[in-house]
Amino acid sequence: MNFERFYENLNKFGKIGDQKEKGISRLAFSKEYYESIEMLDEYSRSKGFETKQDKVGNLFITYNPMNADKFLLIGSHMDTVKSGGLYDGAMGVIAALEVIESLKDNNITGDSGVIAVAFNAEEGSEMGGTFGSRTICNRNNLEDPELKNKISNYNLEVKDLEDCIINFNKIVGFLELHIEQGGVLENNKMDIGVVDGIVGITRYNITIKGEANHAGTTPMNLRNDPIRSLPEVINKLFGIASKYTHPFVMTIGDIRVKPGMYNIIPSEVEILIEVRDMLQDNIDEFFDKIKKFLENEIKDFDLVCNVEKPSVLLDKEYMEIVSKSCESLGYNYQVMSSGAGHDAKEISHLVPSSLIFVPSINGISHSPKEYTTPEHLKKGINVLYQSAISIIGGK
Amino acid sequence: MNFERFYENLNKFGKIGDQKEKGISRLAFSKEYYESIEMLDEYSRSKGFETKQDKVGNLFITYNPMNADKFLLIGSHMDTVKSGGLYDGAMGVIAALEVIESLKDNNITGDSGVIAVAFNAEEGSEMGGTFGSRTICNRNNLEDPELKNKISNYNLEVKDLEDCIINFNKIVGFLELHIEQGGVLENNKMDIGVVDGIVGITRYNITIKGEANHAGTTPMNLRNDPIRSLPEVINKLFGIASKYTHPFVMTIGDIRVKPGMYNIIPSEVEILIEVRDMLQDNIDEFFDKIKKFLENEIKDFDLVCNVEKPSVLLDKEYMEIVSKSCESLGYNYQVMSSGAGHDAKEISHLVPSSLIFVPSINGISHSPKEYTTPEHLKKGINVLYQSAISIIGGK
Repeated sequence: MNFERFYENLNKFGKIGDQKEKGISRLAFSKEYYESIEMLDEYSRSKGFETKQDKVGNLFITYNPMNADKFLLIGSHMDTVKSGGLYDGAMGVIAALEVIESLKDNNITGDSGVIAVAFNAEEGSEMGGTFGSRTICNRNNLEDPELKNKISNYNLEVKDLEDCIINFNKIVGFLELHIEQGGVLENNKMDIGVVDGIVGITRYNITIKGEANHAGTTPMNLRNDPIRSLPEVINKLFGIASKYTHPFVMTIGDIRVKPGMYNIIPSEVEILIEVRDMLQDNIDEFFDKIKKFLENEIKDFDLVCNVEKPSVLLDKEYMEIVSKSCESLGYNYQVMSSGAGHDAKEISHLVPSSLIFVPSINGISHSPKEYTTPEHLKKGINVLYQSAISIIGGK
Repeated sequence: MNFERFYENLNKFGKIGDQKEKGISRLAFSKEYYESIEMLDEYSRSKGFETKQDKVGNLFITYNPMNADKFLLIGSHMDTVKSGGLYDGAMGVIAALEVIESLKDNNITGDSGVIAVAFNAEEGSEMGGTFGSRTICNRNNLEDPELKNKISNYNLEVKDLEDCIINFNKIVGFLELHIEQGGVLENNKMDIGVVDGIVGITRYNITIKGEANHAGTTPMNLRNDPIRSLPEVINKLFGIASKYTHPFVMTIGDIRVKPGMYNIIPSEVEILIEVRDMLQDNIDEFFDKIKKFLENEIKDFDLVCNVEKPSVLLDKEYMEIVSKSCESLGYNYQVMSSGAGHDAKEISHLVPSSLIFVPSINGISHSPKEYTTPEHLKKGINVLYQSAISIIGGK
């Protein structure tokens, strides 16, 4: 494994879209995204790899010296959020590229070829997150007329999505190296996180209703002000959430006051809530408790579920392979769940998949301040490399 | 006094801009505003009154049978908020028109003439509230370059504002009949409110600061979430406010969460607060207490004052005249402060001014649901009429 080569490539391809203090913006389907994919494609061909870009902007770089008919897929996404960092996504793509370059340098061959993949649109577009990987997995609802509309904004038709679907009978599995985007590994002084599952996400909106009125002329005792109930509701949300243990997280992401002017007593307050956990039962129980509380304590309210994405368990055998790679390399690791969705979540529905985390300094991501130390990057790539060799039976 | 005529005129002139269930929108400087002013002007001339429109859209209708060189001004504003009601403003204008029509019908003359006035832009435009009355009182800052910019949107120059200034040596006083826009009179079963002053208004923003982070990957114990402090701050605001008595009112008009997405732990929460009272000392003490609380309990915050408008006391002799009119007519009345600013507030700086309230059903205003009973309207106009006769020494 050639860390200097990896680091140079990460800084070359991963900085496309860099706006300095405003961070890196390489949005899905953007000019910057396609520029990075073209450069990666050209670099890979110059190194003797076969490459292929599909119609939704995914790039596949194939190492297959033995003309095997099965492949291990390794990679992540090349798109970023707006004003993102260098590591979220690109690090895993360039690490996958480094793995096949190292396999080639060392003439390692096995039962399967290896494909390094750069996915498009993991971070979200009109079509939602993980669109690139979702498309190759045939996990879009191709009958959805809204999808047709949305993809037409990118000059795509349903036929194009169909052309992107991969025959997963030819894929033995998937490995993804990614930054943790949280502070658990750093806090526990761990080098590597071996992910056992990706949490489910449920979102609800609570609306507390009152009556709008003139803030100057309505005496305090004649008001029906929904803000009066807000502290009790917020405290209840955090109070009930505190009964559950990690990876359970509850976030109040927004509070919307209508009409939202200094001189009008609000008519309603809406609270946007997201809960994530591995156990859907915990999530459902949490919102049941909230519902009972609202029914008992708040006269006039709405409680509406907006999103429910189930959790996903990752392959135990692959976790074992990754853990053994960490042990053989002498790295500290811990088994943990992922609080965020990733391309591995889509692919895990079809073939054994593993998600490997390296620490994020201060748990920061989606920010120009996103950082992972070179030492941890090196360890992450070594684990990815060793795990890939194990899976393909490389010699 | 001819109530049927008043009621017909109110429904004729006051419904211009009616959008049925969406309420009446006759915004300052709008086509609808000028249509109503033109129709009022034409009607008044047809009744034999002299009229004058000034350059900011105020309309003056003069009754002066004895060619007096002093005038009592009576009126209110003709503009409405967006989706407003029939009564806020227009009722006071049409009542003033009815007063001069009745004086004429009954051949009542006195030491002064009477001018019924319809003001523009009381409800607020780029130039702030009470712009029409402020302009005739020469209470704009004509040196302000921003004002120049703002009025240019209405094809106005500073010279035009100067042309609107009235010589208040010729004005003996001002009477304004207005709906209460609160629930005090209805609650106390009163016919009339005799206003002794208009509260001062102070606005502050509190910003509680935290650190944005990924809502899926950041464990609950590693978060610096400003929403956690929000209940304590809101409870403190209402708690301290409850120590003061009416007319003191405290309103949290908006809460702004940044960045405001389901999946991001907020970086900051901003709370918009407005306090009104007759005593500025109370308002200042309130915010002093809030500041001490924030310094002691909230690590990282901002507290910024945005608006401070002093309270205004109204003329005692005029209050006496209005109260005696109520008594002579056998109406229930109470002395009260106004929680809202009105055209009378501007004019009270120059000549004795009185503000007379009639009840608002359910305290509702700035809404299509705004309503005052015909019985209360009749009583209000009678008080206005009697008070005007007293002031001009009418016979």
